[in-house]
Amino acid sequence: MPAVLPRVELVALRGVPTVDPGMEPWRLVVDALDASGLALEPGDVLVVSSKIISRAEGRFVDLSGVEPGAVARELAGRTRKDPALVELALRESAAISRAEPNVLVVRHRLGFVCANAGIDASNAQPAAAEPGSGPWVLLLPEDPDGSAAGLRAVLHHACGVEIGVVISDSFGRPFRLGTVGVAIGSAGLPALVDHRGRPDRHGRVLEHTFTALADQLAAAADLLAGQADEGTPFVLVRGLTLPASGATAADLVRAPGEDLYA
Amino acid sequence: MPAVLPRVELVALRGVPTVDPGMEPWRLVVDALDASGLALEPGDVLVVSSKIISRAEGRFVDLSGVEPGAVARELAGRTRKDPALVELALRESAAISRAEPNVLVVRHRLGFVCANAGIDASNAQPAAAEPGSGPWVLLLPEDPDGSAAGLRAVLHHACGVEIGVVISDSFGRPFRLGTVGVAIGSAGLPALVDHRGRPDRHGRVLEHTFTALADQLAAAADLLAGQADEGTPFVLVRGLTLPASGATAADLVRAPGEDLYA
Repeated sequence: MPAVLPRVELVALRGVPTVDPGMEPWRLVVDALDASGLALEPGDVLVVSSKIISRAEGRFVDLSGVEPGAVARELAGRTRKDPALVELALRESAAISRAEPNVLVVRHRLGFVCANAGIDASNAQPAAAEPGSGPWVLLLPEDPDGSAAGLRAVLHHACGVEIGVVISDSFGRPFRLGTVGVAIGSAGLPALVDHRGRPDRHGRVLEHTFTALADQLAAAADLLAGQADEGTPFVLVRGLTLPASGATAADLVRAPGEDLYA
Repeated sequence: MPAVLPRVELVALRGVPTVDPGMEPWRLVVDALDASGLALEPGDVLVVSSKIISRAEGRFVDLSGVEPGAVARELAGRTRKDPALVELALRESAAISRAEPNVLVVRHRLGFVCANAGIDASNAQPAAAEPGSGPWVLLLPEDPDGSAAGLRAVLHHACGVEIGVVISDSFGRPFRLGTVGVAIGSAGLPALVDHRGRPDRHGRVLEHTFTALADQLAAAADLLAGQADEGTPFVLVRGLTLPASGATAADLVRAPGEDLYA
């Protein structure tokens, strides 16, 4: 018999429909748990794709209705991107980080530095879209930390279980190729875990002071995205012993003045 | 009965001793599997802490024996770091990325952009260290992709099973606080997965073209590091259907000329 080993399990829930505005994320979770034959357990973390939240919030935009201003038109020329998309990205942003051919990296108004302000152009069409409308895109959720906290609270009420919630997206990053899952919202777990003062085996105090737990959860859940054709909007993470709650995903943002790569 | 759901399990192996130079990583894995009551299965991925490989390779350096040159002394003043540590970081590096008070970010000779050239000062003492020697630090492995390929090949020979291997470290990053697990070596799986040309639900070709699978595995395995006091040098990841092999961790490095944040 194996000894009890530290172990974490990630399961992609089934039974999630195409989400349209007005659908309630907590109800989608409860239905997907039912369809998957699972029930929430204390200490579970639910990683929710930001796209589900954006769609439920109706964050669709028809680019044909977006009028690019002069700044967007200039930037679209420089980046070779659709001027309407660039206009929308500017409206979503606090600052431009890099603009080069085929690249537009901004600081989103939520603080996250990401390409195209996180605007998503794949599977971004609402069910109610008129034929011939679009192209459609989807903005990031309005307040992902708030959405995570709300979803957690209603699931507690509906299921009687307190869990952690992470709202995830996939971002590129400097220095390294490929996207990884990142947390843009969280509740019920510390997005950053403070290891300061924990001595190592030789009594030396550890140098890595903070671990980005919420980002690691988002990256882990993203592993399953390649495993299911229909997408994996809800991934249940079971088996972690979570430290007391604290920082949320908003706290993962480096202050612009302290970021040497802004 | 739950339907068969996409599912991944991560297990931290027990029974790993403090590693000293000359110990063979494959033997440590086999012993840890035995101690944990587990056997490798095809498709498993083993995430190995880079520290284990560095220690086995004897990458210890006694800082008291490192003579800082003029460049290191100037940089140590600017970063308020130990001049011997800075000298060592420079010897390990191809370029300096950022140097500010308490921050030294370099491009390691392996291509990775990270703080202090990945030099590790916690649990970095060899068992054979003379009393009064040190302080000791540990360099990154000499050739992590090569170490991953070697470990994979010997485990195939010893256990008759082909698995994926990721050698992981924890790096900080621009824009976001906290460290996350990253892959510095890999074998037997594509470090980058190419999704180009896969259409979405509406026939639109997906925009996120590459996923950094090896980094996501390293981040997922890092979730277990907080779950065990004695560290989690070997994490077994079970349940993924891996695409055919291709890119290794070295391919995760953005070419300096193509990195807008270099």
